[in-house]
Amino acid sequence: MYHLKFNNLNVSISPKAKIGKNVRIGDNTVIYDNVVIGDNSTICNDCVLGEPLNGYYSDKNYQQPTTIIGDHALIRSHTLIYAGCTIGQHFSCGHRVTIREGLKAGDFFSVGTLSDLQGYTEFGHYCRLHSNVHIGQQSKIGHFVFIYPYVVFTNDPHPPSNICKGPTVGDFTQIAVHSILLPMAKIGRNCLIGANATVGGTFGDELLIAGSPAKALGPIGTIKSKEKEGVMHYPWMYHFERGMPWEGIGFDEWTKNNPDFLKQ
Amino acid sequence: MYHLKFNNLNVSISPKAKIGKNVRIGDNTVIYDNVVIGDNSTICNDCVLGEPLNGYYSDKNYQQPTTIIGDHALIRSHTLIYAGCTIGQHFSCGHRVTIREGLKAGDFFSVGTLSDLQGYTEFGHYCRLHSNVHIGQQSKIGHFVFIYPYVVFTNDPHPPSNICKGPTVGDFTQIAVHSILLPMAKIGRNCLIGANATVGGTFGDELLIAGSPAKALGPIGTIKSKEKEGVMHYPWMYHFERGMPWEGIGFDEWTKNNPDFLKQ
Amino acid sequence: MYHLKFNNLNVSISPKAKIGKNVRIGDNTVIYDNVVIGDNSTICNDCVLGEPLNGYYSDKNYQQPTTIIGDHALIRSHTLIYAGCTIGQHFSCGHRVTIREGLKAGDFFSVGTLSDLQGYTEFGHYCRLHSNVHIGQQSKIGHFVFIYPYVVFTNDPHPPSNICKGPTVGDFTQIAVHSILLPMAKIGRNCLIGANATVGGTFGDELLIAGSPAKALGPIGTIKSKEKEGVMHYPWMYHFERGMPWEGIGFDEWTKNNPDFLKQ
Repeated sequence: MYHLKFNNLNVSISPKAKIGKNVRIGDNTVIYDNVVIGDNSTICNDCVLGEPLNGYYSDKNYQQPTTIIGDHALIRSHTLIYAGCTIGQHFSCGHRVTIREGLKAGDFFSVGTLSDLQGYTEFGHYCRLHSNVHIGQQSKIGHFVFIYPYVVFTNDPHPPSNICKGPTVGDFTQIAVHSILLPMAKIGRNCLIGANATVGGTFGDELLIAGSPAKALGPIGTIKSKEKEGVMHYPWMYHFERGMPWEGIGFDEWTKNNPDFLKQ
Repeated sequence: MYHLKFNNLNVSISPKAKIGKNVRIGDNTVIYDNVVIGDNSTICNDCVLGEPLNGYYSDKNYQQPTTIIGDHALIRSHTLIYAGCTIGQHFSCGHRVTIREGLKAGDFFSVGTLSDLQGYTEFGHYCRLHSNVHIGQQSKIGHFVFIYPYVVFTNDPHPPSNICKGPTVGDFTQIAVHSILLPMAKIGRNCLIGANATVGGTFGDELLIAGSPAKALGPIGTIKSKEKEGVMHYPWMYHFERGMPWEGIGFDEWTKNNPDFLKQ
Repeated sequence: MYHLKFNNLNVSISPKAKIGKNVRIGDNTVIYDNVVIGDNSTICNDCVLGEPLNGYYSDKNYQQPTTIIGDHALIRSHTLIYAGCTIGQHFSCGHRVTIREGLKAGDFFSVGTLSDLQGYTEFGHYCRLHSNVHIGQQSKIGHFVFIYPYVVFTNDPHPPSNICKGPTVGDFTQIAVHSILLPMAKIGRNCLIGANATVGGTFGDELLIAGSPAKALGPIGTIKSKEKEGVMHYPWMYHFERGMPWEGIGFDEWTKNNPDFLKQ
């Protein structure tokens, strides 16, 4: 049978890796020691999974940490994931993604082409990063947070220093293109950060945040939908369902059925 | 004979691809089904042409669309072009470029290193994208539009939503570094968008547009040339010829000889 | 013995390259003619060193320039360095770095993942570029200059034109995320450029520079340390030592012992 991809050319898999059932692995992909891949996953061509940490180059006693990628992953080509990451089920990513060690992400984590996640960061479930997002170390991101291209999360308040404390972002918050989250910024749940904002300090829930330096311009409930006449678009969960767990049933019904989900 | 590149190592070309005359293909490059490459083209090493669309991973009846790249292409290393793109003659690009399906571009299309074109977008002739330009889906760009690093074209007015409508940009317009074009923005012909602008709404022709949010600051004709004393630099076509079809004859003469070019 | 990396698979080294002692070269890496690698260096997998210049594709008499990389380099995967670069000792870089021809950098040059250095630029010693920094051609950067993600150095004052003159940056200056340095900007020693600034013109030493367009907001000495109570953080050399030559002895002691270092 003729295949477009997955011809098993130049694939290198460590004998110490554990590959689930029904996993496809693309040509030229390398999987190093102690990588665990869940069932029904697709790893495309030219990927590196379980990239050794910096200590590998200098430490003779280097120990390779375990890397866990859940079931149903779709990892597109040229993606590089360091050893020591733990990612839930239904992970999907674009091309040339770089993920460093110590990242923990929930289920349905989606990461766009060229994004650069520096590790030691936690993401909840259903987070979506578009192309070219940069997340510095020591950030903490809730569930259903979507982040758009060229957003940067920083962690050093007066560079260079020995402080490394990233931002914290609450569930459902949306962060538009080219925004900067300054070190230790705390953003509440269900906020909208406008394009090109520079955001430091602490913000509550359900706020529209914009500007450079960013300010709260008011509650999110004042932004009119361009899809539905006479309706406010935010909270967005009532108007966007594609790929969300409330698809087909609505957000309120899902919330009623899953009272503990957001506490996970 | 000793070659630096093009040693025919680990090259994989589908029997269903059509490669023109006098085409060089770099080591580790993959060309999938239904890709058509024009004559006298150079595809450097580690490229992927005709990357299968998302449906390939889940649909048993997946049909691979045709990908067309015109004559005289120069595609630098690590570039990935999805199936279903149509690019004119004299295409050239930098390294690690990603182009998704449904992109149509005219002749002399030039794309810089790390640019990420999300597909379903039209470019006219002689467009030049510098490094790290991100063009969202459903954008429409005229002829001779030059776009500089870290510019983003967006398409969702209140993310996340089901709307996907990108910007429209007229012929000859220049978009400086780090600018954002908001969804449905309409920019006229021969405008200059300044660095770091956030541009929404509708703008006419020959305007200097800057700021965040961006405003028209006046006609472009007031920017003094730093090359020629006492001359205004814009419209730039009278002062820049390198690689342009009016090279050696001047813009007015070329326009006279090609009255229908811009209507293509 | 089992190796994670460095299994000598698909490695291609020109017979005209000179590789130092105790150098490790990763799988799928290519080293072209006239590349010189210093002793005790590690070149990871999938790198390209000595990438031929544009003339190679069209000029039958193409001459490959010499590329020099000093001792103790650590070049991470998927990095591409053009022929004609000269980089000092203790170079280290992240993944997917692109460095074009004619770049000269001193010792302890550090470049983050996805950075795109367009060549024909000089860096002093101990410069650190974080991820995704874009440096246009004809820039000049002093010693101990640190540059953070998504910073762009530009070189055309009214694009497109025939002018190519980049910024000049003095020793110890820090340039925060998402800032733009406009063509011919001149920044003094020991300045701090804030996040998201658009910086043109000439600035003296020890200034805090911020805004878009950027202005000098005052001397750097007014920014309080978040590490040490009652102390000002800048000049940073008194509060940051990791990897610096004054580590363990303090900046003043090092300066006394190395009176000529900054004149190199």
